[in-house]
Amino acid sequence: MTHAHRLAAVRRSMAEQGVNAFIVPHDDEHLGEYIPPYAERLDWISGFTGSAGAAVVLADKAAVFVDGRYTVQVRHQCDPSLFDYHHLISEPYLDWLLAELKAGDTVGFDPKLHSQHWHQSAQAKLAAHNITLVPLASNLIDQHWQDRPTPSSHPALLLSQDYSGQHSEAKRSRIADTLAARHLDAQLLTQAEPINWLLNIRGRDIACLPVVLSFALLHQDGAVQLFADPAKFADLDLQAHCGQNVSLLAVEELAGELQALGKKQARVQLDPHTANAWSALMLSEAGAELVFAEDPCMLPKACKNPVEVNGSRAAHLRDGAAVSRFLAWLDRRLDEPHPEREDEGTLADKLQSLRAELPEFVEPSFSTISALGPNAAMCHYHHDNGTPRTLGQDAIYLVDSGGQYLDGTTDITRTVAVGEPDAEMRKLFTLVLKGHIDLACARFPAGTGGQQLDALARMPLWQQGYNFDHGTGHGVGHYLSVHEGPQRISPKGSMVALTTGMIVSNEPGYYREDGFGIRCENLQVVQPADIDGDIPVFEFETLTFVPFDRRLIDSHWLEDKHIGWLNQYHRQVWENISPRLEGDDLAWLEQATRPI
Amino acid sequence: MTHAHRLAAVRRSMAEQGVNAFIVPHDDEHLGEYIPPYAERLDWISGFTGSAGAAVVLADKAAVFVDGRYTVQVRHQCDPSLFDYHHLISEPYLDWLLAELKAGDTVGFDPKLHSQHWHQSAQAKLAAHNITLVPLASNLIDQHWQDRPTPSSHPALLLSQDYSGQHSEAKRSRIADTLAARHLDAQLLTQAEPINWLLNIRGRDIACLPVVLSFALLHQDGAVQLFADPAKFADLDLQAHCGQNVSLLAVEELAGELQALGKKQARVQLDPHTANAWSALMLSEAGAELVFAEDPCMLPKACKNPVEVNGSRAAHLRDGAAVSRFLAWLDRRLDEPHPEREDEGTLADKLQSLRAELPEFVEPSFSTISALGPNAAMCHYHHDNGTPRTLGQDAIYLVDSGGQYLDGTTDITRTVAVGEPDAEMRKLFTLVLKGHIDLACARFPAGTGGQQLDALARMPLWQQGYNFDHGTGHGVGHYLSVHEGPQRISPKGSMVALTTGMIVSNEPGYYREDGFGIRCENLQVVQPADIDGDIPVFEFETLTFVPFDRRLIDSHWLEDKHIGWLNQYHRQVWENISPRLEGDDLAWLEQATRPI
Repeated sequence: MTHAHRLAAVRRSMAEQGVNAFIVPHDDEHLGEYIPPYAERLDWISGFTGSAGAAVVLADKAAVFVDGRYTVQVRHQCDPSLFDYHHLISEPYLDWLLAELKAGDTVGFDPKLHSQHWHQSAQAKLAAHNITLVPLASNLIDQHWQDRPTPSSHPALLLSQDYSGQHSEAKRSRIADTLAARHLDAQLLTQAEPINWLLNIRGRDIACLPVVLSFALLHQDGAVQLFADPAKFADLDLQAHCGQNVSLLAVEELAGELQALGKKQARVQLDPHTANAWSALMLSEAGAELVFAEDPCMLPKACKNPVEVNGSRAAHLRDGAAVSRFLAWLDRRLDEPHPEREDEGTLADKLQSLRAELPEFVEPSFSTISALGPNAAMCHYHHDNGTPRTLGQDAIYLVDSGGQYLDGTTDITRTVAVGEPDAEMRKLFTLVLKGHIDLACARFPAGTGGQQLDALARMPLWQQGYNFDHGTGHGVGHYLSVHEGPQRISPKGSMVALTTGMIVSNEPGYYREDGFGIRCENLQVVQPADIDGDIPVFEFETLTFVPFDRRLIDSHWLEDKHIGWLNQYHRQVWENISPRLEGDDLAWLEQATRPI
Repeated sequence: MTHAHRLAAVRRSMAEQGVNAFIVPHDDEHLGEYIPPYAERLDWISGFTGSAGAAVVLADKAAVFVDGRYTVQVRHQCDPSLFDYHHLISEPYLDWLLAELKAGDTVGFDPKLHSQHWHQSAQAKLAAHNITLVPLASNLIDQHWQDRPTPSSHPALLLSQDYSGQHSEAKRSRIADTLAARHLDAQLLTQAEPINWLLNIRGRDIACLPVVLSFALLHQDGAVQLFADPAKFADLDLQAHCGQNVSLLAVEELAGELQALGKKQARVQLDPHTANAWSALMLSEAGAELVFAEDPCMLPKACKNPVEVNGSRAAHLRDGAAVSRFLAWLDRRLDEPHPEREDEGTLADKLQSLRAELPEFVEPSFSTISALGPNAAMCHYHHDNGTPRTLGQDAIYLVDSGGQYLDGTTDITRTVAVGEPDAEMRKLFTLVLKGHIDLACARFPAGTGGQQLDALARMPLWQQGYNFDHGTGHGVGHYLSVHEGPQRISPKGSMVALTTGMIVSNEPGYYREDGFGIRCENLQVVQPADIDGDIPVFEFETLTFVPFDRRLIDSHWLEDKHIGWLNQYHRQVWENISPRLEGDDLAWLEQATRPI
């Protein structure tokens, strides 16, 4: 079936349903960052495979909306005779719809694939022009998608308390108490990460994100109804693991349970930005009172307990050894014949194979960014979207990768010399590293948000008239998503206080278009500092132990304190990682960690 | 008339008006930071003279509400048999009213003394309990205040373009264009500072704040109606100064002009947080359409033009010489007999007398904080609220003061040794100074808000487990208020971008209760930096030139870059200030600015 045939089929369904437009977002019913193959409806209709975007189909035209990362890719992937291209942010599809439609028209959408908040605001925006938003009972694509992938049937994993550090009972009763205190009958949970955290379960339903895709209702007495594929728990005793007040239901039973809550006129809380419009409609139409608030699992999930922190430390030592072995191998490979036979793809594969030698390794925590020379200047570069670049042409190489282990999630970026870096590259690498160190050395009192610390990592670049166009740090889960909130270190909009147990990345960078890209990334965990002043303060404990490339450092741009930090860090790398290496790798580590 | 008699008189008026409560805020009709003596109604009714607070009078009881700064002072000033005391923030008076009143009761207030925003939110809050907020046609205190001070009749000053740098015509047409673009007929201006800025006028209506108290209507064609006491302009040609489309009306004519706008169904913009409820009611009852937005003069006023920046530089050199002479005199005085005959009051007087020797000096820009030893730990200490402390008992002295000059406004804090500072005092002074230097050295790209830079000034203290409980920097006007927005350098809530011409203070501090207080404050102006990177960045140009006390510096706590900055700063102090000093003062400056 060509994309033209697919569009025609969807247009027939639109006519049957009597809608003038149909929206195809890049989202599944959980509205998380990653989606499984069976939810790649945007790819099915348009051919666009990026991680964010939307298509809108009208009777006689269609358009794809993507952000700045994908403006080139969309032109490669989508047929211009079928789709116009627009910018997702500067030309939002609702504005485009307003321009294309007339008063009295209707817009169909699948309410499972849009948030409650989107539904409310889109409805208001269209209604002002007398255009009606129509929630459809079934998705118009699913009706025609013949070879649709089946959802994962990978068995669930019951995560032992040796890894989770806290029984589900304790987690649930703590959050249920906050519901009861606010006279809420239940919390609807719709994202996979908080549910998997709450019940100490994991799965393999999405690549890189070790979760069981599911919904859940947490009741004010701490009971949970988990809505997931029961086959995934076939050989497991979920109640023995979680407690008798956790019940497993099929996803199809969610509608009935939401209606039952409605009939009881229950007060049900949900997060309007992550709960889909379908569940909100189901509840409110049945008579429930909706209360909107951020998912109450997010903050306790972000504050790792001591067992989770210990697990993360162990995972990072293991991961640091694998990455160090990769960098040692890379240096040797450059001295061997025909380095040009290695490309970004083979390098990424080599790194993954070294991680895969670790028995505790489950899977990568995200798709490795392996970028040589100018490719590294594209923050979201992936070597599969074109011909991978080969070794031998460039001065520097950027590799951003991570692993999922039962005891933690890693994420590390190193930028290393693979040729002859010039003075400017070394200056910029050193400024990026200096900002990384200044943030790593921060101490701060309770109540300090990542937004207040972000400038520390940028100031060395700002001093010389440079900057980077992404956040400085994101939260990282514990054998969960490599990106998690609510904490963040970024210039705007994150005043969530950093507090004990939060894991954040520290990853300033610099990107010279068509030239090169630099990023220095460690993960660090917030801990109380042992300082005897007037007030308690927090500091960052570094989790990642892999050398920074000394060949890229121009110490003219560093102050004594940065050199002191770096030498101390490299001493720790040596102490932590050397017992895990041998032979040439060990010799490499020794020279890579000697003081400057 | 005792306070008991005053309360009784107001209660009689309340009964006549049929209200069960009457609110007395510490505000005048312009809702600015400072109020003139004729508006000190809170003092008249209660005896409380602080700069913020409110009283509420019921038929049989009354209460005064003050913030944490004034909990001691209110007990000294207010008779406990007449007034209860409550905390303005943690026990808001509306909550107290809800507890004291019953459904059907009424609360009287003077709508000229409360903002439109307060009126809306208070009305909604009380209405939910069936209590009615009643705007009174005249203030119940004014009816009984026999010896009420008359408003200032000080003549206005027409500020020459040599000082203002931009003709009123240009200012008005620029802002009027933004009104026209948004289909607004007029902007109501209610605060003195933006009006005085817009028309390039100044006055002496409030101590320390050189303004003509007034209202104004800026029309979309750039015409302005100024509502002020015409006697203040008796000998001046306002139209020759401003343009023919600026007309002067008596304040009493404002009501009629607002009603005329209403009759024309004009769209009138006002700032709901600074425009009083009376003007909003007057407009909307007459039929105007109200549009709420921040006063459009605030941002252009904050971005000083090159003439204003040059004037500020000149004012600071002059002011720096006066403060340096004071510090030189203080050092000599300590070596003379009977230093204990000097106290915080005589020190403040001496400093003012040295400023007053300058022909360009108009008045202080705020009431000098002259604080010895433990008194300096109280951020809002004033030596008049008790017995001034004498020299000879303490190790360090904090003096925070400023001057109003025709060409600029200054604000400087120096902390100096007046005894034998111990190692801890020197450590903390040095950490405060280090934070001051780190902020002074910042560079940052367009769009950076003060909130992103605040942590720079705190980090040296945070590193050792200390902090200070006030903002790091406030905006400063040009021969206007020493406190102005919208820019600010503080931990929360100021994402207004810092940009060329904004003057901000840089004033980290440290306060040891019952011990000592430290603050290091210079003013600095935002300027484009001359740096050749990828992007333009801003930096701070220091305006204040007075030595920091070398005796309080423990260079163990500084890095090379801080010592380099300090020696360079002291070299500039010497170059800028030495030509203005002679004899012993010059010799003092030479030793005070030698390198460390």
